[in-house]
Amino acid sequence: MKRRNFVTAVTTASGVALMSAPSIVHAQPVIRWRMPSSFPKSLDTLWGAAEMISKRVAALTDGKFEISTHSAGELVPALGILDAVQNGTVECGHTAGFYYLGKEPALAFDTGVPFGLTPRQQHAWMNYGGGMDLLREVYSKFNIIQLPAGNTGAQMGGWYRKKINTLNDLKGLRIRSPGLVGQVFAKLGAVPQQIPGGDIYTSLEKGTIDAVEWVGPYDDEKLGLNKVAKFYYGPGVLELNASLSLLINKPAWEALPAFYKAALQSACSDASIDMLAKYDALNITALKRIIGGGVQLVTWPTEVMRGMQKAANEVLEENATKSQSFAKVFNSFKSFQKDQILWSSINDGAAERFLQQRKT
Amino acid sequence: MKRRNFVTAVTTASGVALMSAPSIVHAQPVIRWRMPSSFPKSLDTLWGAAEMISKRVAALTDGKFEISTHSAGELVPALGILDAVQNGTVECGHTAGFYYLGKEPALAFDTGVPFGLTPRQQHAWMNYGGGMDLLREVYSKFNIIQLPAGNTGAQMGGWYRKKINTLNDLKGLRIRSPGLVGQVFAKLGAVPQQIPGGDIYTSLEKGTIDAVEWVGPYDDEKLGLNKVAKFYYGPGVLELNASLSLLINKPAWEALPAFYKAALQSACSDASIDMLAKYDALNITALKRIIGGGVQLVTWPTEVMRGMQKAANEVLEENATKSQSFAKVFNSFKSFQKDQILWSSINDGAAERFLQQRKT
Repeated sequence: MKRRNFVTAVTTASGVALMSAPSIVHAQPVIRWRMPSSFPKSLDTLWGAAEMISKRVAALTDGKFEISTHSAGELVPALGILDAVQNGTVECGHTAGFYYLGKEPALAFDTGVPFGLTPRQQHAWMNYGGGMDLLREVYSKFNIIQLPAGNTGAQMGGWYRKKINTLNDLKGLRIRSPGLVGQVFAKLGAVPQQIPGGDIYTSLEKGTIDAVEWVGPYDDEKLGLNKVAKFYYGPGVLELNASLSLLINKPAWEALPAFYKAALQSACSDASIDMLAKYDALNITALKRIIGGGVQLVTWPTEVMRGMQKAANEVLEENATKSQSFAKVFNSFKSFQKDQILWSSINDGAAERFLQQRKT
Repeated sequence: MKRRNFVTAVTTASGVALMSAPSIVHAQPVIRWRMPSSFPKSLDTLWGAAEMISKRVAALTDGKFEISTHSAGELVPALGILDAVQNGTVECGHTAGFYYLGKEPALAFDTGVPFGLTPRQQHAWMNYGGGMDLLREVYSKFNIIQLPAGNTGAQMGGWYRKKINTLNDLKGLRIRSPGLVGQVFAKLGAVPQQIPGGDIYTSLEKGTIDAVEWVGPYDDEKLGLNKVAKFYYGPGVLELNASLSLLINKPAWEALPAFYKAALQSACSDASIDMLAKYDALNITALKRIIGGGVQLVTWPTEVMRGMQKAANEVLEENATKSQSFAKVFNSFKSFQKDQILWSSINDGAAERFLQQRKT
């Protein structure tokens, strides 16, 4: 059994082989980057991913690759990450692709679309279904490389001040819901509102809006939404997955030594696993507190979900008609999803369903 | 856009700050480890994790931390990984904890138990439900540190030469099924068999055994099981998740520089995401081929699944009675699972179910 130190090989009891390499001395450059986030520090799950990536990169490079993290608005506006990364104002930023639909509709698929993929299916599509290559192509026109970096899981249906019994009840409703989900609601006669996280509570409390789609129990409770709306809707068919991304300025990326690139990639894998695990552990505990406080958990009526699905399909098809890049990504996404839904209905999803039906 | 070197700090249009650090010269030791796997090279998904971990570690350390990979039997027997790592014959090995139930029943939870957690729930339990700490404690008596490193997803119910219509049809059946799944079948009157991967095809072809539980469509097709049994059962309630692990000799681990430890951890995160993604993409394609070849895909009758679940609960409770360490881990596992099933039935699982019901 041998343990060797790095200067000369010595023998110890542990059997560990450490090759000595006194002649190999490698200069690791110190590199400092800045990473703004689209999220405030108060949302420790979403904001936490930026911190985790930074810490893991430091751990992987013996502290030589330092990335400072900056919460929403500190360096750049919450929704200004793509611009700042594209322009090289910052080297990278943690955000969600679908915040930038106005610039490029296909970015929706980087995060998730209504009635879309689960987090697990999103990884499968990205790594083995061609999704990553397609999205890299989309991002390349912004001079950006993206890495998937965190996932919230399915987001809840949202907070409503009155019950939704039929599709008609959605008509005229002012709902805080961004992006494609907003387009789905608009198609159903609701009036989608774009309201930053910080203003949501007040808007709902004052009745400026009637409903809010935010994230899930853990984050929603932090905003206090359970205090200003009585009905909490699920399941999250409008957002089965929200994949966050680290956007990286391409010249900055290309200037990195290969093993610093690897450090960023792997740190993002760590963040992806960790964020979803954290949400799953914390959401159910928060939901129990919320329900204990008098909120009513309601399942969307089937008719409403069917109406939403029909509207979602129309929204996706319309975007595909308007945008070639959207159409190209959607085409890959659609056929991959069909197979994944089939596979899950046969095996993983079917097994999980059996356990759910027996225990609830 | 300029590419900058690391010797002097220069300012370019991109705003990217690369700090120069000519005075920081860091000696990265060359370290060589060996990583045997429990799997043959022919199973490119399972074996692939060992290769991926090795490649990612090399990428993360600029090639300085070299881990050679060795397929089943090359250095140590397929199921001899734990021994070899414990003894320091090798520094680490890629395997499944539940292969070593004979040494320590609680290791079942490192991989998965019948009617247990999904891959996603396994991560949540490990990272935020106390699972990792509990299993570290279990492994510590083998002088081992473990890192989760890959997941197959739910495994299929298996291959049967005749149809299973009632629980009675399982009685006397010789089924290749290891570990706790074998114990469940034994409780239902079947005769579980331990047969290495390489001998399964011949045993089933000759009728030495009547049924085989292996992995899923992609791997099962590689073994040729679709040629020697007509009925392919699902869903994978007996194995909703099979989490693979990298076992690491503790003194070898402790002798690593901190950033090499980080490299191993992150490489395992990469492997975890990648293996499941690969299985999800490849399994459905293989299943279509298999069904196209005349195999009949069959769903377990509900009565059979209920019987299996009852038997599984008894098996888990009996193991808890016999082993204190099993009881300790099971206690944490059980309450975490209850909450996760509830959460999934409300949100993610319910949303996924809606899509499955609409599309199939």
